[in-house]
Amino acid sequence: MNKKMNILMFSGDYDKALAALVLANSARELEVDVTMFFAFWGLFLVRDPEKGGAEDKSLYEKMFGMVTPKGPEELPLSKMNMAGLGKYMLLEMMEDDKTPSLTDFLNGARKKGVKFYGCKLSVDVMGFKEDELIPEVKVITAKEYLADALNSDLQLFI
Amino acid sequence: MNKKMNILMFSGDYDKALAALVLANSARELEVDVTMFFAFWGLFLVRDPEKGGAEDKSLYEKMFGMVTPKGPEELPLSKMNMAGLGKYMLLEMMEDDKTPSLTDFLNGARKKGVKFYGCKLSVDVMGFKEDELIPEVKVITAKEYLADALNSDLQLFI
Amino acid sequence: MNKKMNILMFSGDYDKALAALVLANSARELEVDVTMFFAFWGLFLVRDPEKGGAEDKSLYEKMFGMVTPKGPEELPLSKMNMAGLGKYMLLEMMEDDKTPSLTDFLNGARKKGVKFYGCKLSVDVMGFKEDELIPEVKVITAKEYLADALNSDLQLFI
Repeated sequence: MNKKMNILMFSGDYDKALAALVLANSARELEVDVTMFFAFWGLFLVRDPEKGGAEDKSLYEKMFGMVTPKGPEELPLSKMNMAGLGKYMLLEMMEDDKTPSLTDFLNGARKKGVKFYGCKLSVDVMGFKEDELIPEVKVITAKEYLADALNSDLQLFI
Repeated sequence: MNKKMNILMFSGDYDKALAALVLANSARELEVDVTMFFAFWGLFLVRDPEKGGAEDKSLYEKMFGMVTPKGPEELPLSKMNMAGLGKYMLLEMMEDDKTPSLTDFLNGARKKGVKFYGCKLSVDVMGFKEDELIPEVKVITAKEYLADALNSDLQLFI
Repeated sequence: MNKKMNILMFSGDYDKALAALVLANSARELEVDVTMFFAFWGLFLVRDPEKGGAEDKSLYEKMFGMVTPKGPEELPLSKMNMAGLGKYMLLEMMEDDKTPSLTDFLNGARKKGVKFYGCKLSVDVMGFKEDELIPEVKVITAKEYLADALNSDLQLFI
């Protein structure tokens, strides 16, 4: 399909990230061009779990980096997280069903050529350094996002 | 209007479901073609409150079925639910204003020919059986959703 | 750019309102035509903080008006609000970064000619009077929203 999908990933929830990445993977399998733009809490999904925080951060940026999820598997559920119990149940049900994990879907999207962008304003405010994010992520402005989204056939704010 | 709207209903909140169904009903009155695709928590909106869970479910699926809302009227608010108090206030204000209930809007959408789809992955993971959902719901894959959404004039993720 | 963006602002969260208004301002700078339609909790963003509630409200409407945010700066975060601590941290990080406040972005959008609409059903149910909202807001129906959104190049539900 000669079509284009653009997802603005604002949420940092496991379930919403799963929905977004299932759509991104499925769209690539249909040869749809896919862009994901990670803003605010959505950036936690593309944090590299292996990379520590950089040294040149303000106190708030350091605190913020420490109390927030590092990478896909640490994301909470948007509903019924129940201190992790709800998420545990969901993961068990996914496993029973042989559904791949969020990390699998993220890696699938990376391999299938989904384009990953990070929101410059969010990255600046939260004090993320580009090397704390997975290498596919290129930091762009809201205007660059708009130029892409306005020319897409399907845009979602998740 | 020779137009097409596609709503991906991800949330299981009373207020968001109300927004989605007000739009779906209004669009049908304008002769806009409407598709609703229910995924994750959104599936609770199209659970048939009369149908019990099937017997062939795993333990987690049974527990999950029991602790989650059964049909439209059991959905909580996304904000200020306050153990039901906020929702009670909203319902009272809606009644004072002679606004139809969520069930009314859902039944309106069914009568007006909104197309209802359930997300196969979500149905499988949560262990829903097709006969636990209202009869209009047809279960389809993410790819089938995308084929419809990419050819719509307005798409929303709610 | 001869393009059109339509945002349905449903949420009443500081962070989501910030995302919506950053997009609205950026789009106007690209000469994109921008419509924002405020429904449900989104209406709190366009409440005029200077205006008290009108006299002719029902008891529930008065209570509801009192316990909900008045204008942009009172909105909570969608995540990690932690009784205001998380929001305080975010505001400090924004200030360190010289990012304008939500009120600045709202005023920017007003000056740049973003079109503001309020959802009639929400205004009626919540008992808002038109003069409690900022003067740019014109109250319209869901059908009027749809007519605009169906003819836009980019539509987001935030």
